[in-house]
Amino acid sequence: MTTGVAGRTGRRPGDPAHTRRAILDAAIDAFAENGFGRTSIRKVAATAGVDPALVHHYFGTKDRLFLAALDVPVDPAELVPMVIAGGREEAGERLVRTFLSVWDSPRGSATVAVLRSAVAHPWIARLLREFVFTRIVLPAFAELGLDDAADRDRRAALVASQILGLALTRHVLRFEPLASASEADVVAAVGPTLQRYITGDIGA
Amino acid sequence: MTTGVAGRTGRRPGDPAHTRRAILDAAIDAFAENGFGRTSIRKVAATAGVDPALVHHYFGTKDRLFLAALDVPVDPAELVPMVIAGGREEAGERLVRTFLSVWDSPRGSATVAVLRSAVAHPWIARLLREFVFTRIVLPAFAELGLDDAADRDRRAALVASQILGLALTRHVLRFEPLASASEADVVAAVGPTLQRYITGDIGA
Repeated sequence: MTTGVAGRTGRRPGDPAHTRRAILDAAIDAFAENGFGRTSIRKVAATAGVDPALVHHYFGTKDRLFLAALDVPVDPAELVPMVIAGGREEAGERLVRTFLSVWDSPRGSATVAVLRSAVAHPWIARLLREFVFTRIVLPAFAELGLDDAADRDRRAALVASQILGLALTRHVLRFEPLASASEADVVAAVGPTLQRYITGDIGA
Repeated sequence: MTTGVAGRTGRRPGDPAHTRRAILDAAIDAFAENGFGRTSIRKVAATAGVDPALVHHYFGTKDRLFLAALDVPVDPAELVPMVIAGGREEAGERLVRTFLSVWDSPRGSATVAVLRSAVAHPWIARLLREFVFTRIVLPAFAELGLDDAADRDRRAALVASQILGLALTRHVLRFEPLASASEADVVAAVGPTLQRYITGDIGA
């Protein structure tokens, strides 16, 4: 449930890097045990033996602490405005563009590492799902005026199936010609799929 | 590049299980080093120190040897007729039905294990891609009358992105409500995506 031993050694108590690492280790244990929603910065601070103000000092918000603990190199909540800026009829295309802007950037390989971790460790997958759902999917669908909970949950899972499948084939398995395809080609091919999953007829 | 130590021990030379394991270990090394196409049963037999006839006796064809070596519980080539039976206009729906018939069966968990292995080990991903492409994609697309090589390769990669993304979210990460959705619901939602990737407008 915690990071490697290497992260815990080589720094003395009182050293800022030691304190930061102790907070992250406590956060990983707390998130793994209680999920994102039921973990508080206060509880993480108590486990790490530091003042909550120090956790805020190092990591800012609980979101930031969570992303740092799981080595996620980008705050997906910051990407939501890019996706919803064009309204619901452009959401599919903007969604794939937004993901590609991260994956095809220098931060992409760290993002791919997170996907590998999620596949290898179910508790990481559950945590990430809870975070992405509550911090990204709910607000984004609400902004787009898609409020029916059961319908929204189905659509969100279908979106995840194609977006994560794209990450898997293009960036992890590196299947050609998808791995080398231009952003424009990927958007033309996958954008309409996401658009249909977000606003179109998905049956039942 | 080989299976665990456990697979290599506990059996004496001359024991059929020992011979079978030695052939599989030789096959894994040979496929990993040379790919599917450039590995011969003769070479595997030589590495394992047995007669090629014995490899045929235990495993039948090279396809079967390959699938046994990678612990793939089903020969995907046997599923091709189910997918193409309805012609190109039904191929998307039949493709997702066919995959679900495996994943939702008792063999499903072994199939999911293969996906996990492919994510963890790039050489397994490359091997599986080569096998699936030459043994499944090429003949299936040819049967469906889709012969343009560049176009076919793009379509096949897009199909993989959605099919593997579905396996990932429904069976590995187990995102709800997709993980518990009925076959009919999944077919209604994902079938049209695959149909478009196989025969529709995918841009460029």
